[in-house]
Amino acid sequence: MAWEGGCVSEAEGGLAAVVVAGGSGIRMGAGTRKQYLALGGIPLMGHSLRMLDQNPEVESIVLVVPSEDMVYVRDCILPDLKLRRVPSLAAGGTTRQASVYSGLNSVDASAGFILVHDAVRPFLEYRHISETLDVARNHGAATLVIDVVDTLRRQLPGGNVLMVDRQGLFAVQTPQVFRSDILRRAHETALARGLEGTDDAGLVTAMGHSVVFVRGSRINLKVTSPEDLILAEALLGIIRKKAGL
Amino acid sequence: MAWEGGCVSEAEGGLAAVVVAGGSGIRMGAGTRKQYLALGGIPLMGHSLRMLDQNPEVESIVLVVPSEDMVYVRDCILPDLKLRRVPSLAAGGTTRQASVYSGLNSVDASAGFILVHDAVRPFLEYRHISETLDVARNHGAATLVIDVVDTLRRQLPGGNVLMVDRQGLFAVQTPQVFRSDILRRAHETALARGLEGTDDAGLVTAMGHSVVFVRGSRINLKVTSPEDLILAEALLGIIRKKAGL
Repeated sequence: MAWEGGCVSEAEGGLAAVVVAGGSGIRMGAGTRKQYLALGGIPLMGHSLRMLDQNPEVESIVLVVPSEDMVYVRDCILPDLKLRRVPSLAAGGTTRQASVYSGLNSVDASAGFILVHDAVRPFLEYRHISETLDVARNHGAATLVIDVVDTLRRQLPGGNVLMVDRQGLFAVQTPQVFRSDILRRAHETALARGLEGTDDAGLVTAMGHSVVFVRGSRINLKVTSPEDLILAEALLGIIRKKAGL
Repeated sequence: MAWEGGCVSEAEGGLAAVVVAGGSGIRMGAGTRKQYLALGGIPLMGHSLRMLDQNPEVESIVLVVPSEDMVYVRDCILPDLKLRRVPSLAAGGTTRQASVYSGLNSVDASAGFILVHDAVRPFLEYRHISETLDVARNHGAATLVIDVVDTLRRQLPGGNVLMVDRQGLFAVQTPQVFRSDILRRAHETALARGLEGTDDAGLVTAMGHSVVFVRGSRINLKVTSPEDLILAEALLGIIRKKAGL
């Protein structure tokens, strides 16, 4: 596949996106899995898919969904999004990590960089993609992060409560972008060793490769509860108003 | 001062609220301190002040502001809020803890329970007040908390990054409600020992008294950045729409 941007050498390879929508949405408590719930008239996952589809840096998109939903997504969700390029579908696994790994196996081998994004973060911004990609080009691995502003406590199984020092603490977001060989090796190593992580930057770090932090945004919300969906609807209203839509 | 609710025995005493607006708003990067920034046409701090003012359980309110702002708040902020009862003002200290302590010293000695709330959490709900107060009546100390849904990392001074286990992790919110003797003792102990905490539940826990967790809400946002203010504006729009305002 030709690189549309034209400014990246063949050796570096293009950027493939893996959008993870494998979750069963247990937290949401709704009949519909959270990634299909409507936000602003389209399914939640549609927002970041559109943003990636419109981005000239993104060469291809793999969308990972629960295997039992693949037909539904192909026939009922994707056509309405009117994407320029139809994403490839991959079957999700029982964990997020397994779902990303499944997505990786559907990414074209020629892709030099892989961006991983959670489908339930609808407010993906242009700069999130370009900044993480830039850093990954220079350092091999990048993740969006935000400061933790909350005071944290850890409740131990016995009921005791520990203070958690906030010094140096960050909350990890997506997108995360990796040189594709690094990300593939991290997943294969984790699989071989039986490691289970909550995100890809964690797997890459566990492998001993540093991941550079890129400043994200608190608006880049992860929609995992009915309250988050209310917030997301409100935010979308503000964003559309600002954009004059 | 007479207890308006009429259903609490003299021995238990009424509820006093301490609203902490002592911060200098460095994170916000705006010329105006964050607690005075407008949200929905009134200063940020006005939202929780109104909610506490309207609550029949709340007998009195102490508002803690930077000492240099006391005249401004008294003459320019409070009159516009049209509160039923004018809050007492107390001068904030150099830390949040010092500000709360200053507020405590302005609370009427007859108050049996003290609610502490951050002025920059505008979406205080009726149930947050009643539920934390109920628990504090039974157990002496209560704080709102929410689950941590983000993946966390800790960056060490040398640059190394550690995973943070999410098991048992909670983010602490306000309001926090305490039996007044417990809260006063916690602050005096901390002062005597030179302990510095980010919240009052932490001081009470450090003193060896357990603090019961009450489920909060992700909508009970702490507004500490311009992005949060966008989020807050969006939420306010939704809340007003639902209330038919």
